[in-house]
Amino acid sequence: MSRTVNTDPGPTAKNLLGPGPSNVHPRVYKAMTSPVLSHMDPEFWEIMDETVELLREVFQTRNPLTLPLSGTGSAGMEAALYNSLEPGDTVIVGVAGFFSSRIVEIAQRCDANVVSVNADWGQAIPPEAIDAELKRHPEAKVVALVHCETSTGVLQPLEEIGRLAHEHGAMFLVDSVASMGGHDLAVDSLGIDICYSGSQKCLSCPPGLAPITLSDTASQAMKARKSKPRSWYLDLSMLDEYWISARKYHHTAPASMIYALRESLRILTEEGLESSFARHHLNGEAMRAAVGAMGLHLVASEEVRSDTVHAILMPEGIDADQVRQTLLNDYKIETGGGLGPFKGKVIRIGLMGYSSQASNVLTVLSALEKILIKRGHEMPPSAGVSAANRIYTEA
Amino acid sequence: MSRTVNTDPGPTAKNLLGPGPSNVHPRVYKAMTSPVLSHMDPEFWEIMDETVELLREVFQTRNPLTLPLSGTGSAGMEAALYNSLEPGDTVIVGVAGFFSSRIVEIAQRCDANVVSVNADWGQAIPPEAIDAELKRHPEAKVVALVHCETSTGVLQPLEEIGRLAHEHGAMFLVDSVASMGGHDLAVDSLGIDICYSGSQKCLSCPPGLAPITLSDTASQAMKARKSKPRSWYLDLSMLDEYWISARKYHHTAPASMIYALRESLRILTEEGLESSFARHHLNGEAMRAAVGAMGLHLVASEEVRSDTVHAILMPEGIDADQVRQTLLNDYKIETGGGLGPFKGKVIRIGLMGYSSQASNVLTVLSALEKILIKRGHEMPPSAGVSAANRIYTEA
Repeated sequence: MSRTVNTDPGPTAKNLLGPGPSNVHPRVYKAMTSPVLSHMDPEFWEIMDETVELLREVFQTRNPLTLPLSGTGSAGMEAALYNSLEPGDTVIVGVAGFFSSRIVEIAQRCDANVVSVNADWGQAIPPEAIDAELKRHPEAKVVALVHCETSTGVLQPLEEIGRLAHEHGAMFLVDSVASMGGHDLAVDSLGIDICYSGSQKCLSCPPGLAPITLSDTASQAMKARKSKPRSWYLDLSMLDEYWISARKYHHTAPASMIYALRESLRILTEEGLESSFARHHLNGEAMRAAVGAMGLHLVASEEVRSDTVHAILMPEGIDADQVRQTLLNDYKIETGGGLGPFKGKVIRIGLMGYSSQASNVLTVLSALEKILIKRGHEMPPSAGVSAANRIYTEA
Repeated sequence: MSRTVNTDPGPTAKNLLGPGPSNVHPRVYKAMTSPVLSHMDPEFWEIMDETVELLREVFQTRNPLTLPLSGTGSAGMEAALYNSLEPGDTVIVGVAGFFSSRIVEIAQRCDANVVSVNADWGQAIPPEAIDAELKRHPEAKVVALVHCETSTGVLQPLEEIGRLAHEHGAMFLVDSVASMGGHDLAVDSLGIDICYSGSQKCLSCPPGLAPITLSDTASQAMKARKSKPRSWYLDLSMLDEYWISARKYHHTAPASMIYALRESLRILTEEGLESSFARHHLNGEAMRAAVGAMGLHLVASEEVRSDTVHAILMPEGIDADQVRQTLLNDYKIETGGGLGPFKGKVIRIGLMGYSSQASNVLTVLSALEKILIKRGHEMPPSAGVSAANRIYTEA
């Protein structure tokens, strides 16, 4: 039964510039080596309290019910939908990409009446289309949107649709997996009722936790449910009793990941939210300038481009997945592939959290230029790197 | 918005001798600092493959469908029940403690027809009682048991009930959260169809992952479902497509936790399963000898005591929770409190994984003796430590 001792050097360090996970901050790696405490140790409860307080700061909310779920961003999506919807409830979902389609899929799992408002991939959801469905479905309980759709790089404007949802008495649900910490997302002032995210993008933390926050309206609605949420593990009333209102045991908290999240939130609030948004914006500007200078195009329509995820169409005749493979094998740079209609046609570059740095922008552009020129794409040498650098010089 | 730099020394190192989480092996802490890889990086897939192979070895199974769920042990419970049961399906659950009651609660969440077979806390479930319900419910699809019930310290015998379940055409589901790696649990030779565990007990890994394995019978039954499982996040058909049969993206794998689990499984298989069981048994024997010598009693009935969790009744007039608080504050030793009928009456000592060491047994006994004598319990000085040490000397 016994084995020879392991001499595996372990995972290779890669530069994670895909749509997530992002590079992890060194302080966050270190935090994970802190000694595990029991989920019922009062010392651990203090760490939970600080984590919740920091989450409120980053969500820009005063919502009491704010906590990290013990699962990834998709568990956040499931928790948001399962706790706000009962079988037969109507939810209007703006669908223009892979992750908004996932909202539809999960909402159908809890037997909600799902009304999709579709837009082309690369476009935002127009408020008029949501308004029309709200008028057609006065019973609608929830309007759901993805803030930054990582399959397209579109940053969905939220204000107008949030206003419309409330006007019609519906709750406003927002997926902020690829935006929280990187784009301004003021939960309270935007009137968002249910917002969830993931630890592994703009928070520079490993994947594994899903921050979530519920407004008082959403909490009250949850208390008024006729049926229990379909998931026990993600039942927010019970999690509230463990995390916030009492210390009633629910499940064993994943201590190491919570240490990691707390540290990542400390780093973000030390930098300051405004500074973080400005940093993400500057690097986003540099990437967009470079894409144009290289004669390439983004999937996202011009007025709704996120700073965090850039879905770049490869030139005709160049296989995007081969480009990605060369980036990974020869340059140790991780990027994302195209999803849905863009499979094989797009590479997705994420500049989120600790990955959003000028050095990374210049590094990935330099590699990408070399690969594209070698594969026959005509462009002036250094066009991308120079364009990006111009943005940094002028900043 | 900016803050002063953090000077928090971080969590205190405690000796985790409660019913979980257990102490984490130093190699496992180190593994978590390995660079995060993308869930779609072929290098990460190799790590997934090794993790699955090691899980099969520890579960003693050849089941293809074996993987770690991205959630804690309770997510494992939910996944096991939600994937094997459809609304209206009958499940027979042996209930004699807190965690078997949780099986009932979660099975009810998916609208199964739940038949409880109750035994007193501290007793095992008698096979005859399960047999009687199997005869009364020939439609029963699943028989569910907890192997080691951490609320009582009972180790449930599995063989006879597993045989009965199969005889009646039902699948056999076993919770091995507090036994996997510490007690012999041969999934294939016991005919277990669905078995799940948690990372934070006998595996010496932080909480956050739930290993699960399904027999071919259980996999086939899953494929023959009429309805989709109630959880998308824990849908084992989709997780199978990501982890095992294809590399189809489902959710972002929690890389750091998977590194931790892989390392913990490597450590366990290097030691060898038989050696690990023998180590847990020796320390269990020492603890039981000490409990008797101190004039104390265990909740678990004599013939069904686990080596991993010891629920010790405190003498009349001594508040168990005060004893636990002194152990935590003065000795930095974490133990568990009594649940259900034993609230305030019991302290639970877990000797699992890296926590199952003679040094820990002697340390906690020494502290417990001092506390009990100070609170008026009459016992010969060093009775517990001497009795335990006698076991080690004779071993």
